[in-house]
Amino acid sequence: MPQGQPSVVPDDSLTTRQRRNRPLLLVHTGDGKGKSTAAFGLALRGWNQGFRIGVFQFVKSAKWRIGEQTVLERLGDLHTETGEGGPVEWHKMGSGWSWSRKAGSDADHAQAAAEGWTEIKRRLAAESHQLYILDEFTYPINWGWVDIDDVVETLTNRPGHQHVVITGRRADPKLTEIADLVTEMQKIKHPMDAGQKGQRGIEW
Amino acid sequence: MPQGQPSVVPDDSLTTRQRRNRPLLLVHTGDGKGKSTAAFGLALRGWNQGFRIGVFQFVKSAKWRIGEQTVLERLGDLHTETGEGGPVEWHKMGSGWSWSRKAGSDADHAQAAAEGWTEIKRRLAAESHQLYILDEFTYPINWGWVDIDDVVETLTNRPGHQHVVITGRRADPKLTEIADLVTEMQKIKHPMDAGQKGQRGIEW
Repeated sequence: MPQGQPSVVPDDSLTTRQRRNRPLLLVHTGDGKGKSTAAFGLALRGWNQGFRIGVFQFVKSAKWRIGEQTVLERLGDLHTETGEGGPVEWHKMGSGWSWSRKAGSDADHAQAAAEGWTEIKRRLAAESHQLYILDEFTYPINWGWVDIDDVVETLTNRPGHQHVVITGRRADPKLTEIADLVTEMQKIKHPMDAGQKGQRGIEW
Repeated sequence: MPQGQPSVVPDDSLTTRQRRNRPLLLVHTGDGKGKSTAAFGLALRGWNQGFRIGVFQFVKSAKWRIGEQTVLERLGDLHTETGEGGPVEWHKMGSGWSWSRKAGSDADHAQAAAEGWTEIKRRLAAESHQLYILDEFTYPINWGWVDIDDVVETLTNRPGHQHVVITGRRADPKLTEIADLVTEMQKIKHPMDAGQKGQRGIEW
């Protein structure tokens, strides 16, 4: 674990405090396990620091519910009840976004993805959250449902101090170009390659 | 995210249920960010499933406290209070392990690491936890403080249904050999390379 010491000191005339406080864009990509789990692990740190957290899952099925959602929403409730940590909002594309409550499982996924991104842009402009997790967001970008140039411009010019984490395979080079941190989760070995099924507590 | 479908069906005469329920050994290695955060993200899933969770951090300084500890211990308290989720124990090597309460910051780290591993062996034999996170455990192995062959034998023959996650750089090949899942978190880009300092909510 990096202990907070940079390997070089840049000639950018910023103070240590300024460099410490820059908002980050993090990208977790690659074909290995751990991209989303690491993002939600980071949400724990953020919650503990009192960050306002917004999770936006670009998943096709709203039925796909992972344990992290239950726990992070529980932590959000705890914030409401006791003031501990920060507030948590969790939205899934699935059959329409939580804020639009549009019914129907035959929703147009491309349109839903575009609507999700439009809402995220509104929130970034309003500085609604301090940590955004755009889970599996590389897919709608790669499928052309969300315009990569718009994403790059919006994220580059986002106001205030808002961290953003994007997960998913095959991150667009334009995205990794503007990211502060990119980790490639590389699959060395996976139980499913040995024919093993996913299981509770591990995959969900 | 793998949706639970294996890519091959092995000829091992096990039922789907048996294959689904095999305990896993997971290794998060590589020089990128996300090894520990992904392990703690997994702990969220485990907690939500009611797993008894044991975290063992092989860190040199007990002062190094990360947000995940506060949150997971809080979730453990919640289990005690309301029965939600599972119980959580969190132990740090630092200046002696939590269970031994040995004082002194000048503790012998090699001996402390060996003591930690001995306790973990006892717990594995007693099936104390359902999910073990051995955070930064590759280092005491690589430094020769903990015997890799003992680790391999103990983990290979652990009884019952106990998942184990090991994090840290340069995982010993003997360890990845017996692991069910290995992800290498590869550093593509890191803010510290650009001279940026670690910051709250991201590094701790």
